[in-house]
Amino acid sequence: MTRAPSAAAIAAALDEKTKPPGSLGELEHLAATLARIQRTLKPSVDRPRIVVFAADHGIAARGVSAYPSAVTAQMVANFAGGGAAINVLARAAGAALEIVDVGVAADTRAAALVVQDKVALGSADFVVEAALTPAQRKHALAAGARAAERAQAQGCDLLAFGEMGIGNTSSAAALLCALTGQAPRLVVGVGTGIDPAQLTHKRRLIEAALARVGAIDDPLKLLAELGGFEIAAIVGALLKLKRAPLPIVIDGFIVTVAALVACRVAPSVRERLIFAHRSAERGHGIALAALNATPLLEWGLRLGEGSGAALAIPLCRAAARVLSEMASFASAGVSRE
Amino acid sequence: MTRAPSAAAIAAALDEKTKPPGSLGELEHLAATLARIQRTLKPSVDRPRIVVFAADHGIAARGVSAYPSAVTAQMVANFAGGGAAINVLARAAGAALEIVDVGVAADTRAAALVVQDKVALGSADFVVEAALTPAQRKHALAAGARAAERAQAQGCDLLAFGEMGIGNTSSAAALLCALTGQAPRLVVGVGTGIDPAQLTHKRRLIEAALARVGAIDDPLKLLAELGGFEIAAIVGALLKLKRAPLPIVIDGFIVTVAALVACRVAPSVRERLIFAHRSAERGHGIALAALNATPLLEWGLRLGEGSGAALAIPLCRAAARVLSEMASFASAGVSRE
Repeated sequence: MTRAPSAAAIAAALDEKTKPPGSLGELEHLAATLARIQRTLKPSVDRPRIVVFAADHGIAARGVSAYPSAVTAQMVANFAGGGAAINVLARAAGAALEIVDVGVAADTRAAALVVQDKVALGSADFVVEAALTPAQRKHALAAGARAAERAQAQGCDLLAFGEMGIGNTSSAAALLCALTGQAPRLVVGVGTGIDPAQLTHKRRLIEAALARVGAIDDPLKLLAELGGFEIAAIVGALLKLKRAPLPIVIDGFIVTVAALVACRVAPSVRERLIFAHRSAERGHGIALAALNATPLLEWGLRLGEGSGAALAIPLCRAAARVLSEMASFASAGVSRE
Repeated sequence: MTRAPSAAAIAAALDEKTKPPGSLGELEHLAATLARIQRTLKPSVDRPRIVVFAADHGIAARGVSAYPSAVTAQMVANFAGGGAAINVLARAAGAALEIVDVGVAADTRAAALVVQDKVALGSADFVVEAALTPAQRKHALAAGARAAERAQAQGCDLLAFGEMGIGNTSSAAALLCALTGQAPRLVVGVGTGIDPAQLTHKRRLIEAALARVGAIDDPLKLLAELGGFEIAAIVGALLKLKRAPLPIVIDGFIVTVAALVACRVAPSVRERLIFAHRSAERGHGIALAALNATPLLEWGLRLGEGSGAALAIPLCRAAARVLSEMASFASAGVSRE
């Protein structure tokens, strides 16, 4: 494993560039983060990749979302057809895109571009039972690890995760409450857009689920209880990469909660993470705070799919190139003062 | 001239895309802005261009900057050599870059890539006399207009301005005070990085210049008094484009003050502007507020060169493609609810 340059060496490399010290603000912090994670003074974001995990949720049948479960499979087909937001934003960012079915409640094999790693046709309703059986959790974690291995095998130098799953803000909100002890009224939000009556209904279901589960400290047990195959897959990918020199861009509420689960299991995961944005979803600020994370953008996104992470990729690329391409004072013949 | 789609038509086009309405937050606002300015429901950011105007300032001899005037020409050579921040960030953004010498106090002709449109070897010291003569102002405005014409002739679909000129935060601060009536203590900042004693010195010089100039309402008279050839060139470019269907990305403090001058002369300029970022320079927030502008990024940049505008270009491209490339609910077969 390559030895990382020291923080002092990275700071010195940035200060050698032809600009007043620190004058590129957050871009310099981001450049330093990429150098630290990639263990080089010449970081690159030339082969970025976005992996979107899709799965359905038993709780969706209870009317917690503005959309029916069928939309998960429809959106997977839209991803395969190249017309969804994440397709457009990935192309604009020059990022490869992989879609993985880890538990959509429909057959997605007609879409040839969808990687098949399906755990089941949707997770169970976590209000009344564990969302994932232990075997399902194992499969979902392994599906994420396999996606991480594919990314590494293909020379990916920056990885981002997205998700698609009608009902998954409910899973994520329940997990965040259970992991942090925060009250559902502070965490549960409108997701893709529900009315106040649905929001109250959603919150009460999550309160009931939390009462059912009781006090559990083990984050992977909570993951099985409150679930989401796609959330578990992201956790599995992050755990697989806990020592990899690979920057990982974290998208919105759901991916951030998955990151929190992974960091509770293996704190070294945190060192690999770059937080793309603060979403409009109520609980996202709490999840970011639990990870001591300051995101790059505050744009009020609430789509998911990895859309905010895709927007952050060109910013990461720009940061990397400050270190890898800018001239030094000496090489450019510019006076330092 | 193409008739612009109505705001309602743009909003309807965005709501037809396969995402919950409004779920892409600021990205949708930006997409709508690009559609309005380009007068199409399929905006593009395929041929973005950054034009950097460079010039020297008489006031720089008074020690108002962390760097000597010679750095302006050195940085122009660095731009020509491709190693400065703006080169790296323009390449990362896929943007063409043009450097225009409108008044560097040295011969920059050795750098073949630098467009020569020099007004003089630096502007006069605005503390004791008008920075620009009326003839110089006319030349500088025309140099900017010529750069705008070149951009249009080359099919540019989004234009950004940058600047290089040791001492130009002094000019911009003086102009901002004169245009808004704000006190120098609220506006004058550290620029590329000066110490508290230099900051006091800089503020007193600007107070003296404002006392010399007195109350003038005509923004172009103020421009000549407090100057900056590069600031005048940006004003000239903006005025040339006041009715063009071309989005213009505004960088940091100096470019924002130039935009304020142009908007005071021709308010329709404002409709073409997208504000890239809020810089660390003290007066930038005041300049943005005077233009009723909310920037895309809050990254604490304070370099100039157009660096913040370059970072915003991929975000603009992503926004344009939401409208021009995303599938509709109908075409993708996705349920609306």
